[in-house]
Amino acid sequence: MADHARLVVIGSGIAGLTAAIYAGRSNHDPLVLSGDEPGGQLTLTTDVENYPGFPDGVDGTELVQRMREQAEQFGATVRSGRVADIDASSRPFRLELVHGDVITADAVIAASGASARTLDIPGEEELMGFGVSTCATCDGAFFRGEDMVVVGGGDAAMEEAAFLTKFADTVTLVHRREQFRAEDYWIDRIEDHVDAGDVEIMRNTELTAIEGSEEAGVDHVEIVSHPEGHPKRRQADGEVVDEDTLDVGAVFVAIGHVPNTSYLESTDVRLDDAGYIHVAGGRGGGQTATDVEGLFAAGDVVDHHYQQAITAGGMGCEAAIDADAFLEDE
Amino acid sequence: MADHARLVVIGSGIAGLTAAIYAGRSNHDPLVLSGDEPGGQLTLTTDVENYPGFPDGVDGTELVQRMREQAEQFGATVRSGRVADIDASSRPFRLELVHGDVITADAVIAASGASARTLDIPGEEELMGFGVSTCATCDGAFFRGEDMVVVGGGDAAMEEAAFLTKFADTVTLVHRREQFRAEDYWIDRIEDHVDAGDVEIMRNTELTAIEGSEEAGVDHVEIVSHPEGHPKRRQADGEVVDEDTLDVGAVFVAIGHVPNTSYLESTDVRLDDAGYIHVAGGRGGGQTATDVEGLFAAGDVVDHHYQQAITAGGMGCEAAIDADAFLEDE
Repeated sequence: MADHARLVVIGSGIAGLTAAIYAGRSNHDPLVLSGDEPGGQLTLTTDVENYPGFPDGVDGTELVQRMREQAEQFGATVRSGRVADIDASSRPFRLELVHGDVITADAVIAASGASARTLDIPGEEELMGFGVSTCATCDGAFFRGEDMVVVGGGDAAMEEAAFLTKFADTVTLVHRREQFRAEDYWIDRIEDHVDAGDVEIMRNTELTAIEGSEEAGVDHVEIVSHPEGHPKRRQADGEVVDEDTLDVGAVFVAIGHVPNTSYLESTDVRLDDAGYIHVAGGRGGGQTATDVEGLFAAGDVVDHHYQQAITAGGMGCEAAIDADAFLEDE
Repeated sequence: MADHARLVVIGSGIAGLTAAIYAGRSNHDPLVLSGDEPGGQLTLTTDVENYPGFPDGVDGTELVQRMREQAEQFGATVRSGRVADIDASSRPFRLELVHGDVITADAVIAASGASARTLDIPGEEELMGFGVSTCATCDGAFFRGEDMVVVGGGDAAMEEAAFLTKFADTVTLVHRREQFRAEDYWIDRIEDHVDAGDVEIMRNTELTAIEGSEEAGVDHVEIVSHPEGHPKRRQADGEVVDEDTLDVGAVFVAIGHVPNTSYLESTDVRLDDAGYIHVAGGRGGGQTATDVEGLFAAGDVVDHHYQQAITAGGMGCEAAIDADAFLEDE
């Protein structure tokens, strides 16, 4: 027999937990499935300064824990589990978990977030966990005294580079374009580190390979540069680029995210080309509705642009209010 | 000479302060105009239980104060002032304040929120502040030991009725429909109070007049009832309704809000029939753009449906990110 829940929330990050707080207050006893990365992306941040309400900043893991406690107080249950597939062809929804358990649900909120994007270059997958990482907060301290590379140009890359100066001999920030996408706040922080001599910036530069071994870790990386940016693409065009090698002991990849939506493939939920879930939007109620009635979506699995804790929370709340209207109408 | 700000945020509630936190971090030194109701609607709530991150709840005024402090830390300035008119016909924008000051701005975020709606019945305006109130949190304690009426059927009405039991001899909740719009959480709380004998519910009932004087306060209210609801309309149709009188010492009106948008009348910003600002929505960046380039909008002045602290904060963040993209492109 499958367990049944009135409402299942897929994902336990800010969007999922906010949905659970609101759904709990609507007496739907939501079941939150915590997924492969419990607490979501924010747990990878040590000091969240821009979540409104915490003028002294708050540790990302602590903020998530506080929201989980709040959701549980209003009747939410959080259990581990990752959804492999959803059968939305009849009601209730039938959710098959990775290890074979089945849960049925009257309504579902997809808040499964996004996971770190990787470079897809030789050596990266083999050395992931052996000197290559997508999380400076998690792994930085393992490489104390090493030279390190951070790849990327957004907030996360800046934050990781600044954070790693605590451990690294030197940090080199490698970005494939001339301009950074990051907040000015982060660009200023990084420029302070450049002035202090503990960060070096390489613009218009890309990694092409990571060399090393599981035993000895990362030995060095191969890089290409071109003054107008996108050097790898230019190399493919046969244009001349500068090639070089950097001796480093750790590589942190911070180049964005891919949405976690593979479990929706057998449903009629519409995804965009990058895999993000399409929701109704517009004005009034039902903004978080997907193309499948009773299945709502919120957070980084929908939003490829703003991707902040407060925006994910806002959508999670909206999804719970939308799901409540759906459940009450049934 | 007019003062100039790169970015002016109109309104100092959750949406405005969140926009200011993000705009501050983008080095735009935002100027926040705090309006007639500094801190916005949330300051009228004593115990906010559903803002994610505060499992023990947080006082509304304290939460707003924490956000203000956070915004100021990142370079925001909050000053009192209400905008009377915006000249958006040339750049910079020219904002005329109620007391005659003029401020110019390269970009504007309208986060002016919504204010309490009133019943528009005889006696209401005359006795506002003399026994009639739109804020139980603010005024409840002044009427200790009195019989009180709360008008409305949403979260705010339930919350006010529950809150007022601390002070009132009896609380009568008057709602013009059979069904409440409120969260189940609040309906359950109210039913607990009904069981305990300190709240009485009158459904399908409306107030038609409030009687009293400035000196003696409210004496009684006139009510009409009809078993199928909307009694006042039915009375106009000539249908028979029950008429009655309630002897009460205070009336709390909690029937929703009207958006504060009168200062936009001379601009091309599109408003809907109820006065809420129309924003672009959709996917990706620019979701908070109005029909006037460089003028963005967020919070309860846009959203007539979800209207939660966390959703207002989410939109405030989006508006700041959109305004930043606009300012950087100029």
